Amino acid sequence: MSITRIDPSKRLSAAVRHNNTLYIAGQTADTEAGTIEVQTGEVLAKLDDLLAKGGSSKAKLLVVNVYLSNIADFAAMNAVYDTWLDTDNKPARATVETRLAIATLRVEMTAVAATD
Amino acid sequence: MSITRIDPSKRLSAAVRHNNTLYIAGQTADTEAGTIEVQTGEVLAKLDDLLAKGGSSKAKLLVVNVYLSNIADFAAMNAVYDTWLDTDNKPARATVETRLAIATLRVEMTAVAATD
Amino acid sequence: MSITRIDPSKRLSAAVRHNNTLYIAGQTADTEAGTIEVQTGEVLAKLDDLLAKGGSSKAKLLVVNVYLSNIADFAAMNAVYDTWLDTDNKPARATVETRLAIATLRVEMTAVAATD
Repeated sequence: MSITRIDPSKRLSAAVRHNNTLYIAGQTADTEAGTIEVQTGEVLAKLDDLLAKGGSSKAKLLVVNVYLSNIADFAAMNAVYDTWLDTDNKPARATVETRLAIATLRVEMTAVAATD
Repeated sequence: MSITRIDPSKRLSAAVRHNNTLYIAGQTADTEAGTIEVQTGEVLAKLDDLLAKGGSSKAKLLVVNVYLSNIADFAAMNAVYDTWLDTDNKPARATVETRLAIATLRVEMTAVAATD
Repeated sequence: MSITRIDPSKRLSAAVRHNNTLYIAGQTADTEAGTIEVQTGEVLAKLDDLLAKGGSSKAKLLVVNVYLSNIADFAAMNAVYDTWLDTDNKPARATVETRLAIATLRVEMTAVAATD
């Protein structure tokens, strides 16, 4: 079975497809010091873009993992997430608090999606 | 290939099945202020329930990820986990310390299992 | 479809193979109080070993998840990781800061790889 690597950068591929499954790398906001709402919106837009590039879509999401640098942002992140979510096709999810690679980043997300 | 979503709630599906693989969302205890032993037992019971609903079982677990809000609970969580584990079919595992969505929660687990 | 469990120990399998996919459990250094460079090197050597045992290789990595006990080690971990990486076949990756099971451990990694 073939492996397709999407948007490779210096150190990682932004997504990798194998066996009808798309694995999306940790996505963070370009507005690195933005509010949680701004950062969440940017991260979700990146997920949409990588899902499309990988031959998948929001409707085929299997799992989303959410890493918040401050769990106090949980409700505000969810408010943006809920407007984005395909409510007919909700993925599994886990949300935990972890420090992220850049101190001002408030949210990072990974995802797994179906491509068939 | 079809996607089956199990126990969808407002924001997420408790588990999602695709390609003979079952992805279980982050499970936490209903006794949100219980001891680590009580919470671990409740989380594992939820895994059992979702494995059954998804057409899998403990014997087909591939991965369990354990998030502890205090890594000092590692030994006490393991004591309960070890009595639950199917020792003929041990999944891969990773355990890390992260804050969780509710301050009194001590443990959250996600899992991946085979369904064939 | 069969499930193959690799290097089972008391509590977990070091890797589990199913459906042309290999899931590697959280790997940590044997030199538990080593520098981040030493620990990263040891963890990556364990990934290589488990990839080989599971019928995969670095070229078939899909995802690597990196857990650092101090995110300040990000650059030093990456310096070792970058020399190890198959730059023609970069996996997706996410790196977050979490406490680990032993206080002196500085890095833990899990991975998912293709076996076909």
